[in-house]
Amino acid sequence: MATINENFLKLPGSYLFSEIARRVSEYSAANPEKKLIRLGIGDVTRPLVPAVTEALHKAVDEMASLDGFHGYGPEQGYGFLREAIAKNDYQDHGIDISADEIFVSDGAKSDCGNIGDIFGTDNIVAMSDPVYPAYADTNAMAGRAGTYVDGQGWDKFVYLPCTAENNFSPAPPDQKVDLIYLCYPNNPTGSVATKAQLKEWVDYANKNDAVILFDAAYEAFVTEKDIPRSIFEIEGAKTCALEFRSFSKTAGFTGTRCAFTVISKELVRGGAKIHDLWNRRHCTKFNGVPYIIQKGAEAVYSTEGKKQVEEVLAYYKQNANVIKKGLDDAGLTTFGATNSPYIWVKTPEGIGSWEFFDKILNEASVVTTPGAGFGPQGEGYVRLSSFGEQEATKEAVERIQKMLKK
Amino acid sequence: MATINENFLKLPGSYLFSEIARRVSEYSAANPEKKLIRLGIGDVTRPLVPAVTEALHKAVDEMASLDGFHGYGPEQGYGFLREAIAKNDYQDHGIDISADEIFVSDGAKSDCGNIGDIFGTDNIVAMSDPVYPAYADTNAMAGRAGTYVDGQGWDKFVYLPCTAENNFSPAPPDQKVDLIYLCYPNNPTGSVATKAQLKEWVDYANKNDAVILFDAAYEAFVTEKDIPRSIFEIEGAKTCALEFRSFSKTAGFTGTRCAFTVISKELVRGGAKIHDLWNRRHCTKFNGVPYIIQKGAEAVYSTEGKKQVEEVLAYYKQNANVIKKGLDDAGLTTFGATNSPYIWVKTPEGIGSWEFFDKILNEASVVTTPGAGFGPQGEGYVRLSSFGEQEATKEAVERIQKMLKK
Repeated sequence: MATINENFLKLPGSYLFSEIARRVSEYSAANPEKKLIRLGIGDVTRPLVPAVTEALHKAVDEMASLDGFHGYGPEQGYGFLREAIAKNDYQDHGIDISADEIFVSDGAKSDCGNIGDIFGTDNIVAMSDPVYPAYADTNAMAGRAGTYVDGQGWDKFVYLPCTAENNFSPAPPDQKVDLIYLCYPNNPTGSVATKAQLKEWVDYANKNDAVILFDAAYEAFVTEKDIPRSIFEIEGAKTCALEFRSFSKTAGFTGTRCAFTVISKELVRGGAKIHDLWNRRHCTKFNGVPYIIQKGAEAVYSTEGKKQVEEVLAYYKQNANVIKKGLDDAGLTTFGATNSPYIWVKTPEGIGSWEFFDKILNEASVVTTPGAGFGPQGEGYVRLSSFGEQEATKEAVERIQKMLKK
Repeated sequence: MATINENFLKLPGSYLFSEIARRVSEYSAANPEKKLIRLGIGDVTRPLVPAVTEALHKAVDEMASLDGFHGYGPEQGYGFLREAIAKNDYQDHGIDISADEIFVSDGAKSDCGNIGDIFGTDNIVAMSDPVYPAYADTNAMAGRAGTYVDGQGWDKFVYLPCTAENNFSPAPPDQKVDLIYLCYPNNPTGSVATKAQLKEWVDYANKNDAVILFDAAYEAFVTEKDIPRSIFEIEGAKTCALEFRSFSKTAGFTGTRCAFTVISKELVRGGAKIHDLWNRRHCTKFNGVPYIIQKGAEAVYSTEGKKQVEEVLAYYKQNANVIKKGLDDAGLTTFGATNSPYIWVKTPEGIGSWEFFDKILNEASVVTTPGAGFGPQGEGYVRLSSFGEQEATKEAVERIQKMLKK
C-alpha cells in the first residue's frame, strides 16, 4: 500500500491570497463601476527591457538553426551566465565568489524550498514573524515543523518576532537553532538589516554550526550605501551562509523565471560541503534553465541592460516613495519603502489588518495585503506594493488620503 | 548544529557519463585526427521547428510590451497549454483527461524526482534493471533505498530484471511493492509494453494500493498502432497511476525545458487525492514555466507544429532503423528501435559492456553507452541513440560493420 507524506495533511490552507481574491471579487461584483487599483501582490508590471528581449530573440534564432541549437545544458547553468553573475553581482563589489559557486535555477521560490532536501529533518528552523509563507510550508512538508497551532504557527519552529521596537530586524535568539531563514530587504515588512546586525547573525551561526539561508531577492531595491545587498559582504559568512537571488524583481523576470543560489565551497556541515550536496541535488532533480532564458538573463548585465533595468527599478522606487510620503502625510505610520518595493503600514489605532484591508477596499477601491496573513506579528499592519503603474499608484494614494480624511 | 541529509552521503558517484567522458577525451587526445561520432547520449540535435520558434518570438514581443507582459503565471501552467495538452494528447485519443489534471513543469526529470515529496519514506520502490538512474538516486536521497551494494544496487529497492527472455518488459513481482516506476518506451532498452502487459501492472497496483509512476517521455516514438502511448489507455489506470511526459524528445525541447505530469482526481491514497498533494507541492516549491516557453510548447499542437514535429521525429526514426538494420546485418542482436529512439545491442559473446564500448570507440571512433552503467542486467549490452545527424549515423553504422568484419 502506497503511503503519502502525512506532513502534507497538516498544512493549513493557503488562506491569504485566496481570501483576498474572494473579497476582491465580491467587491468588484457589487461595484462594477469602481476602478480597482491593485497594490496587494508583489508582482512586477513593467515589460522586459529591450536588452533582454533582444537577447531572447537572438537565442530563439539560434535554437532555430542547426549550428546554434542547444540541447541539454549544464544543470548548474551555462558558464556565460555564471561568470556574468559572479563578476557583476559579487566580484565587482569586492566579494570573492567564483562562477562555480553559482547555481542557476528557475526561481528563488524553488530554491528556498528545494534546499531542504539536503538538510536533516531534525534541524530546528528559525524564521521571522511575519514571514514569506514558502519557508514555513516547505519545512512543514519535510517534517521539520511539528504541529500547526491556529494563530500561532508551527510548534517546532522558532519564530523571530519582527516589531516596530526592533525595527523589524530581530537579533539571534538565546536558544540554539540550526537553519535560519533571513530575508533582507524583507518581504513583507520592507525592513533591512545593517552590517552590524548581519554580523551578529553570522557570528551566531558560525558559533552554533547553524546555516543561514539568506533570501536576497529584493537586493536591487537597496538605495542606502551602507546597507548590505549580500550576506557575503559580512566577514565569516562563507562558512555559515548561502544566498538566494533572483532576476524576478531585479529585471522583471517573474514570468520569465531565472534565479540563482550562491554557496561557497567553504560551507561545510556534517563533514560535507553544502556546495557539493546542492550540486548533487541540482544535477539529479533538475535539468537547467532554458538556454533562451539564460541568454536573456545574461543581457541584464550588459551595459545597456544595466542602464535599462536601473530605469525600471527607479520607476518602482519612485512609486514606493509616493506611497510612503502620501501615507505619512495622511498621518499613518509607515515602514520600508526606502530600500524595498514594499511599504509596511501600521493600521490606525484599534483597527485590525483585515478590517483595514476591507476599509481600503470598500472605501478607496484599492487592494492591499493584510499583514496578519504573514504571521501573528503582522497583525495591525497592511502591506502595499510599489510594483503598480505610476499614475494608478498616485491615484491609489490620493484615494486612501481622502478616505482617511472622512 | 545544522545536520545534513545523510542519505546524500550514501549515493555512489554518478559514474556512467563522467567515465564515458573521461574515456572519450582520452581517446580524442590520443587520436586528434579521428572524427568522433557520438551516439551515446540521449540528447536531440535537430533545431526547434519553425512553428515553435515563431511562437517564441511572438511571446518575447508580448513580454516587451506593457499590454502583453506576463508576470507570475499559474504554477500549474497556463490554461491555453493545459487545454492543448488535454485535447491533443488525451481527449483526441479517446482518453478522458481534463486540463486541470495536467501540471506543466520544467522537465520530466524534475517531476520524476520531486514526486517523491508527496509520498511516505516507508514505501517500497520497484524499478526496472537496467534503469534510468534518476529514479534510483532521488529515492535514495529521500531515504527509501537502504544501503548501496556495489554491483547490485540498493538493498531496499525491488529491481525488476529486464532481460531478452522477458522481452525487457518484466511482469509484476510476487511480493508487494508500493511505488512502481515504469518507463515505456523504455530508456535504456528501447522496449515497449503491450496493453495486456500494462493491464497486469494496473491490476496489480489497484489490488495492492500501489502507485505506478509511468514515464512516457518517449511516447512520440511509438510507431506500432497497438502499443499504448499512455498508461491512461489502460482501464483502471486512473485509480493507480500518474504519468510523466515531456516536450524534450517529442519536440526537441531538451534545452528549452517543458514537460508535464498527469494525475487523475480519481487517484486516492491514504485518504488524500494525489492530485491535490501534487498541486500543493507544485504551488509551494515551483513558480511555473516561463510564459515564453509555454507559448512555444503550445505551438507544438498547432497544425503546422504537428506536421513539423512529425518530420523531425521521422528523421530520428529513420536513424533508428538505419542503426538497427545495419547492426542486424552485421550479425549483432538488437532490440528497441521500432518504437524508440534507442537501440539496445547485445555485445558479441564473451565481451562485456565496457569492453565493447571501448572496442567501438577505439576501432570505429563511435561513442555508445555501456549497458552495465544502467544496472547489472545491462551488462552485455550497449545503447545506441538515434538522435544524431543522419549522415554521421550512417557512417557510424558502416564503421561498426567494418570493425566487426575484421
